[in-house]
Amino acid sequence: MKTLWQHCHVATMAEGRYSIIEDAAIVTGGGRILWIGPRANWAVEGTEQTVDLGGAWVTPGLIDCHTHAVFGGNRSGEFEQRLQGVSYAEIAAQGGGIASTVRATRAASEDMLFASAQQRVQALMRDGVTTLEIKSGYGLDLANERKMLRVARRLGDELGITVRATCLAAHALPPEYAERSDDYIAHICNDMLPALAAEGLVDAVDAFCEHLAFSPAQVERLFIKAQQLGLPVKLHAEQLSSLHGSSLAARYQALSADHLEFMTEEDAMAMAAAGTVAVLLPGAFYFLRETQLPPMDALRRHGVKVALASDLNPGTSPGLSLRLMLNMGCTLMRMTPEEALAGVTTHAAHALGMGSSHGTLETGKAADFVAWQIERPADLAYWLGGDLPKRVVRGGHERDI
Amino acid sequence: MKTLWQHCHVATMAEGRYSIIEDAAIVTGGGRILWIGPRANWAVEGTEQTVDLGGAWVTPGLIDCHTHAVFGGNRSGEFEQRLQGVSYAEIAAQGGGIASTVRATRAASEDMLFASAQQRVQALMRDGVTTLEIKSGYGLDLANERKMLRVARRLGDELGITVRATCLAAHALPPEYAERSDDYIAHICNDMLPALAAEGLVDAVDAFCEHLAFSPAQVERLFIKAQQLGLPVKLHAEQLSSLHGSSLAARYQALSADHLEFMTEEDAMAMAAAGTVAVLLPGAFYFLRETQLPPMDALRRHGVKVALASDLNPGTSPGLSLRLMLNMGCTLMRMTPEEALAGVTTHAAHALGMGSSHGTLETGKAADFVAWQIERPADLAYWLGGDLPKRVVRGGHERDI
Ligand SMILES: [Zn+2]
Ligand SMILES: [Zn+2]
Repeated sequence: MKTLWQHCHVATMAEGRYSIIEDAAIVTGGGRILWIGPRANWAVEGTEQTVDLGGAWVTPGLIDCHTHAVFGGNRSGEFEQRLQGVSYAEIAAQGGGIASTVRATRAASEDMLFASAQQRVQALMRDGVTTLEIKSGYGLDLANERKMLRVARRLGDELGITVRATCLAAHALPPEYAERSDDYIAHICNDMLPALAAEGLVDAVDAFCEHLAFSPAQVERLFIKAQQLGLPVKLHAEQLSSLHGSSLAARYQALSADHLEFMTEEDAMAMAAAGTVAVLLPGAFYFLRETQLPPMDALRRHGVKVALASDLNPGTSPGLSLRLMLNMGCTLMRMTPEEALAGVTTHAAHALGMGSSHGTLETGKAADFVAWQIERPADLAYWLGGDLPKRVVRGGHERDI
Repeated sequence: MKTLWQHCHVATMAEGRYSIIEDAAIVTGGGRILWIGPRANWAVEGTEQTVDLGGAWVTPGLIDCHTHAVFGGNRSGEFEQRLQGVSYAEIAAQGGGIASTVRATRAASEDMLFASAQQRVQALMRDGVTTLEIKSGYGLDLANERKMLRVARRLGDELGITVRATCLAAHALPPEYAERSDDYIAHICNDMLPALAAEGLVDAVDAFCEHLAFSPAQVERLFIKAQQLGLPVKLHAEQLSSLHGSSLAARYQALSADHLEFMTEEDAMAMAAAGTVAVLLPGAFYFLRETQLPPMDALRRHGVKVALASDLNPGTSPGLSLRLMLNMGCTLMRMTPEEALAGVTTHAAHALGMGSSHGTLETGKAADFVAWQIERPADLAYWLGGDLPKRVVRGGHERDI
């Protein structure tokens, strides 16, 4: 059905700028934008339905391009212990940290994982999110990584949101492979990844490149395998130290390198040349009380596309609001509200390899948008938490938020 | 109607601790708690209705004890300008800062102020807030302070939330009194406060004690007047410098002193002796990128009750979520989740002079509570933004959130 949406202003986010159309009209049909422009100019015949958006500001549907939304249990007990003065070492000795999430995820049935993830994904959706990336990485064996990725697919099928599933088997070393990280990487390359890819569960391959996780050489073996399987790659890089994982990612035309607090100017140049998106995760920066900021000036200077994401995960960013990340990107990382909004729309789409179909409001693109009752686009980064009145449209149809 | 609420655990928050009752029952009637305890012991005859809370964790309804929720316009434009590199001085020269909010508030009708505040208050309510303080302070003359306080009263009458209205005429110097701050204080004491109090619009009197606002001597004149009118006082103190406003507040048995980044140990001792609550405002601390933390250790050592609030205001804390403030109180100010929850329940009630009727779940107190679908009370401080599934009961009746 062709629908005309009018009585609104639009920040199309074309070229990563607001690119505002005042008093706009949008015509949608077949899930796509058939026409968009100043209302005075609109010229598509035969619309069957007209919707008055009441003077709203329309933006592309928000895209959260880095989440670990599927996991068992949560770590609020550890959060409380740490604030009561228990040390990281004691918590680790009790079996805490990521090991506890791996145990809880392995112990949970697919239905249990779905039910808990559903609540979290719905919290993100209430903020206007229409596309979401979800990583595996708490299973760390074939059966449990498969279980997580199947839950990600099911969330996309059942919740009215577009989901991209990323295999992050190389997130941490499973207990079965203690002291044998090369063997675990070989197992991922030889067994897990081919099987999961063959089942259609993998849209991209990710890894955690850090002293406490996997080395650049191990990551490179994984990337070569991903390339053989025709899967795009991305990487958790330079969060805690500078291993130049982001440059490595760029060499493999990675969709994105994520975190990046310790990246260098050379890394930024490599990413710019490769078109690899820089995904900043201010929720983790805030939650861990980091002080080393990612180098926004270098990223701007070299023209790297910068995205923002929630990093929703139980250990370092239990973030249920992407709009809060806009505020944190501005307040903590000194992005402008326009850069922040580009970071959860067009640049986030590029970080998922969906730049040609999502992330801006242009003719031919997906009819995914949010009509916000706000005074100006900067409001989206300005308000701190809470809920803003909105209507959400996905694939041309208004969605229960 | 007597109602039995069961199938829940309760964190009563008595004595400022979780004070947990596992497998609890709550009996409400006439807006109050008639009985609360382990379900096995419950013994009130004649309940007419039973509600199954599905295994929820029940806490007192949240209390936001420091907001400036009523104001005209917003300052997202300034927020954006600052991040684009425009200096504070340039923004002030353009008429920005609090002066712009005063202009917008004076220009707005009572209905316009109500409509915009309603959206913000509803955002706070969705987080489980059942009691809210609202300050005037953007009118700065009799007619406009009255208008703000009337809006505060109306929000309480119409929205299903308990509102306390605080007169903050001594928030900033109005342009009409430039260079004549003593005269403005005299005008508040002689004209504004008596009139507003006589109209029943004032539950407490507040001021901003700071070099850029009012001196301790001026605040003291205001406090003496408030005392004569039988009104309790509170104070914005030690946010940017140490003027010992919190000790002054304690000398006048203030309900609370708020902000407190620069308070001293002596201030903490004075507040403890007077029973003055320390209200910390982590949203403003975060938004302004403060580095000086309020002295949690000294506050704990001297047994000062510590509350947390949103400080919702357009200039320094556009915060629409009280639960986010729990996380910021823990993450930024190193409170424990239990301290943070006490800070938005029992201690916040004391900061509003409502400690005997609100803030804990005990027999005889108001039947204001929230039933949260969470794993443990620490979840309330752990999750970062977003929405948690809940049911909200106020005065014994379930409220549309
Ligand atoms: Zn991550
Ligand atoms: Zn304030």
